[in-house]
Amino acid sequence: MDIATLRETHPDHWQKATAIRVLTLDAVAEANSGHSGAPMGMADIATVLFGKHLKFDAANPGWPDRDRFILSNGHGSMLIYSLLYLLGDPQITLDQVKNFRQLGARTAGHPENFLVDAIETTTGPLGQGIANSVGFAIAEEIQRARFGKKIVDHHTYVFAGDGCLMEGVSQEAIALAGHLQLGKLVVLFDDNGITIDGRVDIADSTDQQARFKASGWHVQEIDGHDPEAIDAALTAAKADPRPSMIACRTHIALGSSAQDTSKGHGALTDPQLIADAREAYGWPHGPFDIPADIKGQWEEMGRRGGAKRSEWQDRFNGLSASRKGEFERMLAGEAPKKLAGTIRALKKQISESAPKLATRKSSEMVLEVVNPIMPETVGGSADLTGSNNTLTKDLGTFSAEDRKGRYIYYGIREHGMASAMNGMALHGGVRPYGGTFMCFADYARGAIRLSALSQVPAVYVLTHDSIGLGEDGPTHQPVEHLAMLRATPNLHVFRPADTVETAEAWEIALTSAKTPSALALSRQNLPTVRTEHKQKNLTAQGAYVLAEAEGKRQAIIIATGSEVSVALAARELLHELKIGTRVVSMPCQELFAEQDESYRRRILPPGPVRVAVEAASPFGWDRWLSGERGNAKKAGFVGMEGFGASAPAEELFEKFGITAEAVSAKVQSLL
Amino acid sequence: MDIATLRETHPDHWQKATAIRVLTLDAVAEANSGHSGAPMGMADIATVLFGKHLKFDAANPGWPDRDRFILSNGHGSMLIYSLLYLLGDPQITLDQVKNFRQLGARTAGHPENFLVDAIETTTGPLGQGIANSVGFAIAEEIQRARFGKKIVDHHTYVFAGDGCLMEGVSQEAIALAGHLQLGKLVVLFDDNGITIDGRVDIADSTDQQARFKASGWHVQEIDGHDPEAIDAALTAAKADPRPSMIACRTHIALGSSAQDTSKGHGALTDPQLIADAREAYGWPHGPFDIPADIKGQWEEMGRRGGAKRSEWQDRFNGLSASRKGEFERMLAGEAPKKLAGTIRALKKQISESAPKLATRKSSEMVLEVVNPIMPETVGGSADLTGSNNTLTKDLGTFSAEDRKGRYIYYGIREHGMASAMNGMALHGGVRPYGGTFMCFADYARGAIRLSALSQVPAVYVLTHDSIGLGEDGPTHQPVEHLAMLRATPNLHVFRPADTVETAEAWEIALTSAKTPSALALSRQNLPTVRTEHKQKNLTAQGAYVLAEAEGKRQAIIIATGSEVSVALAARELLHELKIGTRVVSMPCQELFAEQDESYRRRILPPGPVRVAVEAASPFGWDRWLSGERGNAKKAGFVGMEGFGASAPAEELFEKFGITAEAVSAKVQSLL
Repeated sequence: MDIATLRETHPDHWQKATAIRVLTLDAVAEANSGHSGAPMGMADIATVLFGKHLKFDAANPGWPDRDRFILSNGHGSMLIYSLLYLLGDPQITLDQVKNFRQLGARTAGHPENFLVDAIETTTGPLGQGIANSVGFAIAEEIQRARFGKKIVDHHTYVFAGDGCLMEGVSQEAIALAGHLQLGKLVVLFDDNGITIDGRVDIADSTDQQARFKASGWHVQEIDGHDPEAIDAALTAAKADPRPSMIACRTHIALGSSAQDTSKGHGALTDPQLIADAREAYGWPHGPFDIPADIKGQWEEMGRRGGAKRSEWQDRFNGLSASRKGEFERMLAGEAPKKLAGTIRALKKQISESAPKLATRKSSEMVLEVVNPIMPETVGGSADLTGSNNTLTKDLGTFSAEDRKGRYIYYGIREHGMASAMNGMALHGGVRPYGGTFMCFADYARGAIRLSALSQVPAVYVLTHDSIGLGEDGPTHQPVEHLAMLRATPNLHVFRPADTVETAEAWEIALTSAKTPSALALSRQNLPTVRTEHKQKNLTAQGAYVLAEAEGKRQAIIIATGSEVSVALAARELLHELKIGTRVVSMPCQELFAEQDESYRRRILPPGPVRVAVEAASPFGWDRWLSGERGNAKKAGFVGMEGFGASAPAEELFEKFGITAEAVSAKVQSLL
Repeated sequence: MDIATLRETHPDHWQKATAIRVLTLDAVAEANSGHSGAPMGMADIATVLFGKHLKFDAANPGWPDRDRFILSNGHGSMLIYSLLYLLGDPQITLDQVKNFRQLGARTAGHPENFLVDAIETTTGPLGQGIANSVGFAIAEEIQRARFGKKIVDHHTYVFAGDGCLMEGVSQEAIALAGHLQLGKLVVLFDDNGITIDGRVDIADSTDQQARFKASGWHVQEIDGHDPEAIDAALTAAKADPRPSMIACRTHIALGSSAQDTSKGHGALTDPQLIADAREAYGWPHGPFDIPADIKGQWEEMGRRGGAKRSEWQDRFNGLSASRKGEFERMLAGEAPKKLAGTIRALKKQISESAPKLATRKSSEMVLEVVNPIMPETVGGSADLTGSNNTLTKDLGTFSAEDRKGRYIYYGIREHGMASAMNGMALHGGVRPYGGTFMCFADYARGAIRLSALSQVPAVYVLTHDSIGLGEDGPTHQPVEHLAMLRATPNLHVFRPADTVETAEAWEIALTSAKTPSALALSRQNLPTVRTEHKQKNLTAQGAYVLAEAEGKRQAIIIATGSEVSVALAARELLHELKIGTRVVSMPCQELFAEQDESYRRRILPPGPVRVAVEAASPFGWDRWLSGERGNAKKAGFVGMEGFGASAPAEELFEKFGITAEAVSAKVQSLL
């Protein structure tokens, strides 16, 4: 539909959609930075979606039963800011729009969920939004199954561009959504045929509609500028039991001289271009000037959902106090009060029985006692359930047939799993954890970073955390992954030494509000090192003295995970030589770094030789060896220098010299 | 086709295929570890492919015009070892098979290209093999266009499982191969319906055939145990101009009691199961015992390509000396002799003119002089060509229509790009580089690790390397990525300060034989800091003294990339205060770590205060601050503590305190 027809046949719609377009042009020009084309191309779709379909209340962006809106092509952030300003969202004032992309503004270059309440998820890295949306839709299904349709009954709408669909993670998401038949998920594909490098056909010839159909989606194709077609397609999408994809043919940067070009993708700042576009739109108003009647119509749309919200509130108020309490507790992400006692009881039992277990098995033991008292947990694995030990007896399988199940077979889709976990957590009401081999955290890396950045307390269960996995060899043996994870801001990386530390790590992970956790767990059996029961969660301090030196303290061995028992054995060897040696277990470097100086000094005083042992890259360890009151001349590391190898685990520890004897020798060489 | 029919109708084939199956069972049992099911399921396909189609010569695995065989489902490694042993590959003896997965054996848990000449690529992380194969096929097309069909004319065959097809990277690969119409690529999909967690249908409902068709592939479906059907399908695949996918319905762990179960995926070691399978196969021979006639038939197959190889050799010998020389030079990955002089000339010109340039632009300047003299380079970008500055004037576009083009529009597919680069480099004859924003190295992380592990000298052009990219905000601003890359073994991470260092980094990257390189390049303009021309490549030493202290040396500032000019400005401030300050530029930590102790001591002597400045996470920096003869009390870091923000770049450097004033203040506070 061309502009002339659109203006003539749908004058009211046209005015409203144009408000988005000119705000975008004005804000990008003011910032001299940003992406004009996508908001200009998708304005009609957004106007119809927000005007006729999306269930929301601009004054209450946190209403739990709102529809979710996700801008997967996050570079089009001015679309979301224009919408929120027009609709009357109190956080997005005109001043915010004028300060697009400026320091301190909520209107950041890409939409950030931690800056604006109405922004459901941080997008920008392409493909993440559409992959998050699968998690949103799963969480909705689970909550609906639990609390009933009267309390939970909403859709997830996604805007996605060619970039999102080219990224591999989108395939994982599409396949998962189709398999799980997430019928309340609706993706609107901005099919504008343009990417940064030029026309899509220089890099892609995919029949996207056929591709979605191959995964069991309901697919439609429409003119993305025709309000009636958009409306009808959204109605049909909601009626179909399958997830829906609507391919919307649009013109990027509609109505400007950059329309349908890759130039239109970026920042359109040329004053003449902008003036010409205003002319083409028939928009005589000045920059940032939205006439009151148009703003009024948008604000009316912003209030549209108010009545529905209050009806919902009445229904919610009609629930029993315990149901309400449970709903609110889960939504707030608060762990049940019973959790602390449950963890303590397990710790006590383990300290007394001192089993020899792989920490992946320890993790399963924790989940076996935690999952029954935390119905909000939703577990899963990227096709390594039996190896990651992520499934417990009570969970049931979440599937197209059973929405009460709490375990998801994600398939061999680490990235899709991680991104779905982000979506679930951001939706609220569920607390996701998911497993894979630690080495394949690589595949999920894009989404793990976003867990950290967007402050999502997802839990990554990363088993097979070193050469200790043995024969599968270097492709499966993490070496640099602990460093990669620890270098990431706002991520807790736990490498527990035994079942007690594993229980403590889980307790921290499951009570975390804004920080994701990665649990590095062993494939191989490890002895219980915490044989004396402590009520206190020692892992929460990041590091602590596990075994004190006998006699004069000449050395401190710092170790994590499977190497803590190596350190204890080295201490025995050194004590035989009358070399007093303290062993510090350091299950979480980030939490130790947060402790106050006096605690850190107590654990790592200046003076003694320091040797760290970890079956991983030394990268990052100098902070605790020569740094932190240490001395480079008296500091050493026992671990990996390169990639691993394929052989039985015990032989690998010998080959790479990660043994009590090697640690003892290293200490002696530094005395 | 059931076993009885197969045995009856194709007795010779059956015996040969059974040899693979029993060797697999025996080796896995001996190792008590491994994956039996895939080799048992794909033995018929392998037997037909190697017996009738694959062009190879077992005695000469390096023959350049051989067909490439890639086992993307790399856990089925015993398939490849069985084949190589049976065919008479000199590296895979029976002893090697018996030592499957043992320390020092070539028969590692997953196929490693650096252990066995006939193994084209390291596989195991699922999806990588099929994504590599796109690069193999691209390299073949480019070489064929350059040297003609008589010298280069071979196919790339891939075995892939459900896991490969579920990984998102496979979608990127499939879409790219379809778009580029890589007609000599043939994928045999082991459609056995089983993954580790159970039946595929617990996690996936994708119509894989429709999915490949949506990307423009030729698709067939066959019984993967029927030799005639396999043969016919391969013939048809080769005849079709599109890339081909053959969905082969197979039975995992065929003929054992674990057939068609997820148990069959793993290690079948139960003696009774193995005995029963032998019985079902009608195989009366002992463990590892292959009757001479069957072994003889296989060895005959191994010699099948010998004649073709010698005909090829004759044709090759008929080329002119210069053509032969060029072919061999490119295949050996040797840079042309002119490279060194070209780089030196550029350096001299730059040192004299001292332009202010973004290093991404510097990189383009280097490529502009290098690409014309290195016809083996193949560039590309994941849809950020204009931002990554990866395209030079002479390259031309590689497309379905033009196979002589040397620039690839990869689309928004960082992972697929990186994996294709690995494939190209492993194929040989081309030297790939590819660009994306540094933050999106996350998406390619799985393939970058494999570049390093499998010793591939791919070059990653990672632009927009810090908060210096400005308004796009934290989703686009790398913070932990330098640490992630530096922690990876066998990867050179360069962060050049100006055009001279960028040229030096490229020279190292383009002459590297077995180490990939990552170039961290700025979006923003940087002054030339190397204003005095040196013939020598100073970047090759990893770090060097850029500016010496005036007067007594009280401080050393270590900096990289865009922060080198900040360090120089801080030095000026400190010199005004009579604080003698040396500036060390450290463009490559890994190369500095390789220098001998005396050089390192010369650059970083004990004594002075040390401050490092880098607009990134401090993670890993203590090695050069408190370590390496340093002193924790006199060491400091100026950089990022968390994620970035959206704002103009200069404001961000102020906000995060990465300024000359802050560096100067840090030095003073430590004196």
